[in-house]
Amino acid sequence: MAASEESLRQALAEKQSIVDAQADAVRALKARPGGAAQAEIDAAVEALKALKVEAGAAARRLQAALSNNSDGAAASSREAFRQAVVNTLERRLFYIPSFKIYRGVAGLYDYGPPGCAVKSNVLAFWRQHFVLEENMLEVDCPCVTPEVVLKASGHVEKFTDLMVKDEKTGTCYRADHLLKDFCKEKLEKDLTLSPDKAAELKHVIMVLDDLSAEELREKLKEYGITAPDTKNPLSDLYPFNLMFQTSIGPSGLSPGYMRPETAQGIFVNFKDLYYYNGNKLPFAAAQIGQAFRNEISPRQGLLRVREFTLAEIEHFVDPDDKSHPKFVDVANLEFLMFPRAEQLAGKSAKQMILGEAVSKGVVNNETLGYFIGRVFLFLTRLGIDKDRLRFRQHLPNEMAHYAADCWDAEIECSYGWIECVGIADRSAYDLRAHSEKSGVALVAHEKFPEPREVEKLVIVPSKKELGLAFKGSQKMVVEALEAMSEKEALEMKATLESKGEMDFHVCTLGKTVSIMKKMVSISMDKKKEHQRVFTPSVIEPSFGIGRIIYCLFEHSFYTRPSKAEDEQLNVFSFPPLVAPIKCTVFPLIKTQKFDDVAKIIAKSLAAAGISHIIDITGTSIGKRYARTDEIGVPFAVTVDSTTSVTIRERDSKQQIRVSIDEVASVVKEVTDGQSTWGDVMWRYPTHSTAHTEEE
Amino acid sequence: MAASEESLRQALAEKQSIVDAQADAVRALKARPGGAAQAEIDAAVEALKALKVEAGAAARRLQAALSNNSDGAAASSREAFRQAVVNTLERRLFYIPSFKIYRGVAGLYDYGPPGCAVKSNVLAFWRQHFVLEENMLEVDCPCVTPEVVLKASGHVEKFTDLMVKDEKTGTCYRADHLLKDFCKEKLEKDLTLSPDKAAELKHVIMVLDDLSAEELREKLKEYGITAPDTKNPLSDLYPFNLMFQTSIGPSGLSPGYMRPETAQGIFVNFKDLYYYNGNKLPFAAAQIGQAFRNEISPRQGLLRVREFTLAEIEHFVDPDDKSHPKFVDVANLEFLMFPRAEQLAGKSAKQMILGEAVSKGVVNNETLGYFIGRVFLFLTRLGIDKDRLRFRQHLPNEMAHYAADCWDAEIECSYGWIECVGIADRSAYDLRAHSEKSGVALVAHEKFPEPREVEKLVIVPSKKELGLAFKGSQKMVVEALEAMSEKEALEMKATLESKGEMDFHVCTLGKTVSIMKKMVSISMDKKKEHQRVFTPSVIEPSFGIGRIIYCLFEHSFYTRPSKAEDEQLNVFSFPPLVAPIKCTVFPLIKTQKFDDVAKIIAKSLAAAGISHIIDITGTSIGKRYARTDEIGVPFAVTVDSTTSVTIRERDSKQQIRVSIDEVASVVKEVTDGQSTWGDVMWRYPTHSTAHTEEE
Repeated sequence: MAASEESLRQALAEKQSIVDAQADAVRALKARPGGAAQAEIDAAVEALKALKVEAGAAARRLQAALSNNSDGAAASSREAFRQAVVNTLERRLFYIPSFKIYRGVAGLYDYGPPGCAVKSNVLAFWRQHFVLEENMLEVDCPCVTPEVVLKASGHVEKFTDLMVKDEKTGTCYRADHLLKDFCKEKLEKDLTLSPDKAAELKHVIMVLDDLSAEELREKLKEYGITAPDTKNPLSDLYPFNLMFQTSIGPSGLSPGYMRPETAQGIFVNFKDLYYYNGNKLPFAAAQIGQAFRNEISPRQGLLRVREFTLAEIEHFVDPDDKSHPKFVDVANLEFLMFPRAEQLAGKSAKQMILGEAVSKGVVNNETLGYFIGRVFLFLTRLGIDKDRLRFRQHLPNEMAHYAADCWDAEIECSYGWIECVGIADRSAYDLRAHSEKSGVALVAHEKFPEPREVEKLVIVPSKKELGLAFKGSQKMVVEALEAMSEKEALEMKATLESKGEMDFHVCTLGKTVSIMKKMVSISMDKKKEHQRVFTPSVIEPSFGIGRIIYCLFEHSFYTRPSKAEDEQLNVFSFPPLVAPIKCTVFPLIKTQKFDDVAKIIAKSLAAAGISHIIDITGTSIGKRYARTDEIGVPFAVTVDSTTSVTIRERDSKQQIRVSIDEVASVVKEVTDGQSTWGDVMWRYPTHSTAHTEEE
Repeated sequence: MAASEESLRQALAEKQSIVDAQADAVRALKARPGGAAQAEIDAAVEALKALKVEAGAAARRLQAALSNNSDGAAASSREAFRQAVVNTLERRLFYIPSFKIYRGVAGLYDYGPPGCAVKSNVLAFWRQHFVLEENMLEVDCPCVTPEVVLKASGHVEKFTDLMVKDEKTGTCYRADHLLKDFCKEKLEKDLTLSPDKAAELKHVIMVLDDLSAEELREKLKEYGITAPDTKNPLSDLYPFNLMFQTSIGPSGLSPGYMRPETAQGIFVNFKDLYYYNGNKLPFAAAQIGQAFRNEISPRQGLLRVREFTLAEIEHFVDPDDKSHPKFVDVANLEFLMFPRAEQLAGKSAKQMILGEAVSKGVVNNETLGYFIGRVFLFLTRLGIDKDRLRFRQHLPNEMAHYAADCWDAEIECSYGWIECVGIADRSAYDLRAHSEKSGVALVAHEKFPEPREVEKLVIVPSKKELGLAFKGSQKMVVEALEAMSEKEALEMKATLESKGEMDFHVCTLGKTVSIMKKMVSISMDKKKEHQRVFTPSVIEPSFGIGRIIYCLFEHSFYTRPSKAEDEQLNVFSFPPLVAPIKCTVFPLIKTQKFDDVAKIIAKSLAAAGISHIIDITGTSIGKRYARTDEIGVPFAVTVDSTTSVTIRERDSKQQIRVSIDEVASVVKEVTDGQSTWGDVMWRYPTHSTAHTEEE
């Protein structure tokens, strides 16, 4: 253990003991015969809250030290932490490698019961936070997509990774993986490496994502990289399309793909959705659904998979007005941002106030800024640690040429900083692409309050004169003249007026002809226009739900010693909002009357819509608490009498006594977020002889 | 209009006028100066409720008359009704043909905003009604499935439809569709048809689903059926696998399919789920997700599609004990059942009490019966008309050979009776199939309270003797002897004891050998067993969510004249549970102060989690009511003052006045199902000058 880590651990232990002492003091105050003055209790409670915040910060610093430290010890501690999380997740069936009894398929995972419940809670909250609160138009489109759609979007041509094959066995590898592995291995194991060479290899790893196919090919050749398992020579590298291909209908003539994103389903429906919204901008459409990516060799466990759930928003807005009426609601938020300038200067992410980031132009526009703020609120309410969440702006070379600005919500976990949400201003690219390919205009209209006078270029070729001069070629010359841009036409007008004739290149003829003044009339006419027709810009927040959930698992996981101190107990500190089960019910001992009470309580919980389980195994209360902590159940109800029961909170382990007919409403109150545990604590007596972990 | 239909219409109109009169009486009672006695009001309200039930029944009888009547007029009225529903659904974007701007793909549909909201409400209720209330283990598995899994399940071999091709153009047709279309056309258009021939064609249509490939081939040949568009000859018929095929990973060597059902994901996880459930039976696992079926030529609009959402339950149970502890909760339900005997006798479905159906053995077991009851409750609470819902038992030839019993929940719509939920007792088939293919035992254990003595067959071949007799073939003979069933072995034992030798056929040798007494010892040994190991039976309720939703649309749709009587207004009478939007907010006239109130109300609705829209278009209140009725919004809030507002119920058009700060809680109460509209009606004043459809 590094010295600094040891000191952090000591600091944390001290804070925790102060918190415990204060908690005891509060309890004593409450229990004092005759009762303490309310003001006294309130003050003590406030002090306890502040102490808890400090203890939380100390715990986070320790966590950060464990994760951020860049030496080998920290790396292996990150590995050990991940192993502990993943072991718990797999043992408690949060995840299951899919088709496990058939030895599985790389990159495919099932959500088992608690994982599935967490996912469905996350999606329900996403619907509440985005679709409902923002009045978005939610749609649900099929995964099977005909080729024409994905040709228009560019996926058929460009959704590829570069691959090489073992020339003898045919095994496939991702070219960049091989290069990265080679560099890492050299750096770790080759003790003869010169400082220059080491720097070069480190540089390669850093710029890996930006290498062109040509550069990647060069590097593989230069380093003499061979197939890792067989040392056989490798094929040349070639693009592999990452979409799962299939065929629609029985003829075999209609190729289709499993969609690589949900966004296209929204774009192709723009016209109908715009109409549905009363032909008004801005509006947002949203979609939750499966997306597919036939990875060459999936790595990073649950973070890079072949099938995943996306939740995407396409917010359509007038490109001339990207203000947002509700921006004020998020303008005061302050969090970690990592603008382009800081990245290029080698600095680190910094705390910024969102309103300032927008007003200073760091974030391109208010609407983009509004979504960054809403995403921040979404993630932190789920339980993502705000100190391990940052918004990183794309560098110019990361962005598509058409994008106006792009920020990724990155969450730090044991794999490093992981992109979990992308928030991009994609300008008019997608709608234009589908307009062109389908021939259906995907545009918006702005009616002017009164008609506006605009100048419009009018080019009128004289067919008679052109016919006489060019005979059979006349048509091509006419078309070329009509196709001139405003600038070209005005130049021609000036030249014809001053010189009477002008050389003019006609592409379709492949030659230059001479145009005389009488052959064409060019003028700027005044015209009244009643509306502006334009292609809306789209701002796209796109959420990788599986990645968010995995990071949430890491951020929520901690261990604590059992009272017997013979083992570490695992806890997921999920907020009630996402906890897979809100409440467990335990009869203290195995007797019919307690079982009956447990059933009555279970029924009232079900009626209140609270997910719960009954654990009537005869094992000790301590073991049952441990079992329920390990899947992150926030509240446990112990049935120890036939009139009232004990409710225990997971993280503080505090217990209160509540009468049987109030249990469901109390649990609902604290799981719905109407009240905090702190709020209800003072309304009910604490348990005089609390059930402990040893029982 | 048929005479009986006319009389039903009159009866309905009469009932409705009595309801209206009684409603007025109730209103008068309430408004009486000094107030009526509460008892008097209560009695009047009860009378009104009873009348409404009668009016509802009359309306349903009319509906049934419209749908059931088998003559041409009724058929065309069904068509017209369907057209009206589908027009409304498409115009209001409940559904959109997918990829419409690219001229669509047959059998693929999007859910637009209101459809998507209905779907998400139906799924949320499914989770509440089944997963939560029954403590099921929900899982979420990928759609991409490796071939080995679907080989084990039988889908690779058997999930096929019979297809024929136009020999010249290559166009594909479903063989049974061609035969059906041929018969229908003949029956409709060929006036020279003899009664015998007509009977024959009708019979063919009836038994279409039961025809073997051979019979189908014969019929196509006998009737000289050709390609419908070109009249070209048809190819021989051959099976076409309905799964969308793809390839997993880059090698092209791992075939995979898009899952045709979600069930397999549960079966392959049985071992883990059983462990998760504390190694106890019974338990149920559930899954909601997309499934795929590459139909040859999709028909019936939204009922037969290529991608759809399934919700499936696999309830694992001891085959020796299929009782269900909660069966009493559903035993008194009475609804339309259509047992095998009634079908075979040519009778119609009949009202049965579920408890009797199980006790008389009509339904195979309590667990199957319990799920039938729960499905009935689920569908009727969604808003499916219970008079157009029946449970039809599979005929012996419809069931897989391994199935113990199977009932379909069929819902009547304009396409006829449609299978929407299948509830099958599949015995141990699926788990056994995956056990065999994977080599992993998918079994359950029942520990005996104390060890039991059982007799077990023991076969001990004498390798020495067999080696001497058969030399190189010894191994095959040993294996064949060890593989004998108990019956074969006991016969051999008897023969050897009486005759000293016996002829014995060894398959692997392809010949019969002579076995002498000394070559094998056969005995029944007594052994103590501590547990029973068995493969659980599975009872599978499987819900086609899209079909249920489509039938719900038809059952909820009605038209009513506008007050001006110049047009019919469309209404979807969704219960609040499934309504896409629970509440609309209209400022009565366009003024800033009403707009502000509307925004305050909208905010409180959002905070209460109630989906809503604001309609601030300047159109008349009547038009806005019509617009909101047409997407089935149950409540409309009209802002007509800055202190209190009007809430209007969709179907009764009744209005009450509620203060602004109570709006959200009142709407929540009636949409959550805590209260009915009738309940809140009496707590608030009705609107003195109600907003009418003409405003």
